Amino acid sequence: MNAYFPLFIPKSFLSREADHVEGFAKECAVVTHSRLKTAEDGSGVVVDPKSRLEEEVIVRPTSETVIWSMYKKWINSYRDLPILINQWANVVRWEMRTRLFLRTSEFLWQEGHTAHATEEEAREETLKILNIYKDVSEKVLAIPVLTGLKSESERFAGAVDTYCIEAMMGDKRALQAGTSHYLGQNFAKAFDVKFQNENNKEELVYATSWGVSTRLVGALIMVHGDEKGLRLPPYVAPVQIVIIPIIKDDADLNKIRNYLKYFIIELEEKRIRFQLDDRLKISPGFKFNEWEMKGVPIRVEVGSRDMEAGTLLCVRRDTSEKQSYKIDSVASELNSLLDKIQGNMFNQALEFRDKNTFTAESYDEFKSLIESGGFIRCGWDGNPDTEAAIKGDTKATIRCILPDAIDKKKKCIYSGNPAKHEVIFARAY
Amino acid sequence: MNAYFPLFIPKSFLSREADHVEGFAKECAVVTHSRLKTAEDGSGVVVDPKSRLEEEVIVRPTSETVIWSMYKKWINSYRDLPILINQWANVVRWEMRTRLFLRTSEFLWQEGHTAHATEEEAREETLKILNIYKDVSEKVLAIPVLTGLKSESERFAGAVDTYCIEAMMGDKRALQAGTSHYLGQNFAKAFDVKFQNENNKEELVYATSWGVSTRLVGALIMVHGDEKGLRLPPYVAPVQIVIIPIIKDDADLNKIRNYLKYFIIELEEKRIRFQLDDRLKISPGFKFNEWEMKGVPIRVEVGSRDMEAGTLLCVRRDTSEKQSYKIDSVASELNSLLDKIQGNMFNQALEFRDKNTFTAESYDEFKSLIESGGFIRCGWDGNPDTEAAIKGDTKATIRCILPDAIDKKKKCIYSGNPAKHEVIFARAY
Repeated sequence: MNAYFPLFIPKSFLSREADHVEGFAKECAVVTHSRLKTAEDGSGVVVDPKSRLEEEVIVRPTSETVIWSMYKKWINSYRDLPILINQWANVVRWEMRTRLFLRTSEFLWQEGHTAHATEEEAREETLKILNIYKDVSEKVLAIPVLTGLKSESERFAGAVDTYCIEAMMGDKRALQAGTSHYLGQNFAKAFDVKFQNENNKEELVYATSWGVSTRLVGALIMVHGDEKGLRLPPYVAPVQIVIIPIIKDDADLNKIRNYLKYFIIELEEKRIRFQLDDRLKISPGFKFNEWEMKGVPIRVEVGSRDMEAGTLLCVRRDTSEKQSYKIDSVASELNSLLDKIQGNMFNQALEFRDKNTFTAESYDEFKSLIESGGFIRCGWDGNPDTEAAIKGDTKATIRCILPDAIDKKKKCIYSGNPAKHEVIFARAY
Repeated sequence: MNAYFPLFIPKSFLSREADHVEGFAKECAVVTHSRLKTAEDGSGVVVDPKSRLEEEVIVRPTSETVIWSMYKKWINSYRDLPILINQWANVVRWEMRTRLFLRTSEFLWQEGHTAHATEEEAREETLKILNIYKDVSEKVLAIPVLTGLKSESERFAGAVDTYCIEAMMGDKRALQAGTSHYLGQNFAKAFDVKFQNENNKEELVYATSWGVSTRLVGALIMVHGDEKGLRLPPYVAPVQIVIIPIIKDDADLNKIRNYLKYFIIELEEKRIRFQLDDRLKISPGFKFNEWEMKGVPIRVEVGSRDMEAGTLLCVRRDTSEKQSYKIDSVASELNSLLDKIQGNMFNQALEFRDKNTFTAESYDEFKSLIESGGFIRCGWDGNPDTEAAIKGDTKATIRCILPDAIDKKKKCIYSGNPAKHEVIFARAY
């Protein structure tokens, strides 16, 4: 169910869950006053000290605390469970070093918050959402992702387990593209949310939370973009096909409009998102560049030679391949061409990731590999100190703990002790 | 074009337009710090004084200033105009006395901000949007509204002219349900936004802004609700038709499902939003009340007698009228019944408003009329002092200046001087 909760969180709410406040305290936008006034020396507008709030409010960095303060009121019995709430909202995490779309003080996201009667059900929900995120990323955005657990140091503040989808950008850095948390009973404890179970016993509820943000827009740009600009996967491109008439004047344009008439009706019927760029004062070459920069998957060119031949020339943004199609059949070709481009863009990104994923057998190899970027797959002894030491040496962090069972002979890349997990290290945004 | 601008506005931006900052200074959420820390005495979490911001930021009360700081960069020539931007966002205006949906410190809205090459074009845009708001209110939400100008005292801070749609709630109070502002060149001056016009001369641009908010949800509740709960106009009801089987057990339910099979397919084909309430442990009577409270426009009842007769019983939420229809033809009746309900709800609200709109000829009459609520139509001399005096006496304010030409003999209800305008006075939220 979609819902909307307040932007402002009382400081005391945020403080209820110890790990949670610890995690967010250092990057909070704190509202302390509610008025401005003209400075007494007339020098400008200043904060009115008389408007100081009794209790400061925090601009939400995430909404667990404000939502759980309501769950306390809404949940009494197992009949009230599960509660599945999703919110589309802006959140703020104060950042010193921002990076457009990837790390901004304010970002837009959806955040899900669920409460369940059993651990099993909550864990199932956590993984269900993780898989939805993976599907959206791979099948819609054409961005391949690894899924797995985060290590403790990268875990969400207040979670028992944080799962992530992790992507490789075009510069071989890692990007955490979405997270799904199993919160156990941590927030239920902090907000005293208990329910009568089916045996009439009081129990704390089990929880999850999960989110993806406008960071995915950054991922889309950085995974698929090239030296000509954006490349948008067809399934999310606002314009899937741009039609550029090769013309000199109005008279030409009218002929072309006439020639395209049925083609355009067919595009509409097939619900293909297209645009006819009929600006007269701008040259076709300029238009080609402009639409390439905007990432439109297919450019359709049409000039007098095409009209004579009864064809249209289609140019793919992903491969620059050109092909002429008979105008009578082209519309039906385009849908499958869009699918093909979608698939190809995913495969290109997957190949790129695979080509830049390495296995390190020694720490020296690890250090030399990390310099040229990419993902490094290796053993880890599970010790946070090891992880910290590697980060100190190389700036690389554990991006995710791979879910596969581990070879018992595998050693930790740093300590040489038996490895507890196989993990992916990388430098990240 | 939809766009998104930042939540936080530097204090210096807000201060650029004098009337604007004057209007919003008294209700600003001011962010002064960016960190919390554990108190030194261990007593809890406090604001870290070292994190004080160099310049405070304001949580946007509206986005003119942040958007105009960008228009300054985007607008150079008449070729860049008009710019038409719309944003869906949350805004904050600190309120001491809040009222659910009608007056809340944070609210959700859309805000439009446009820049034009001429006054004429900007004024046209202002009125175009005002009419869109009127249409949405009347044709979709079934809420009749008056349109007109606001007097100076109720004008948007920074506007030349503020137009409004003004509605009467079920308790006869007035609610400003949306506004559209002609901003003249005020923000262009404040942010130095000039353009080369077609004659190569530099000129300040002309602007509009406009918005409607979640307050409309409050209006919907307060205009249409009755003692049984919500009444939702069919065009916005998430569930337009609820089907309630009159049953004793599972076996009955199966028979009814079978009976309803084609009816349900027809509802789906007609894209009617319906729900079959097949909960077994809850009595039909309880369900009737629950769905009435939720405001569903039509309840369809079906029991064994209906099955024998080949009928369905339809009950209107707006009038409580019941009517049986043959099951073979009912689906096609329902679409027109939904239209009828939509129209009737608008007419009910319109009659209510008209019945409670009075013309006052003397100030004594005015004062006695205002006590029982409603809109009072009267002459006003155009003097802000007159308006303030009336407000002081009666708590009524000018809700809108009627656009009609005024009878030259008309007198001001308070001063007795010649009236400049005919206006609507009312007590408002």
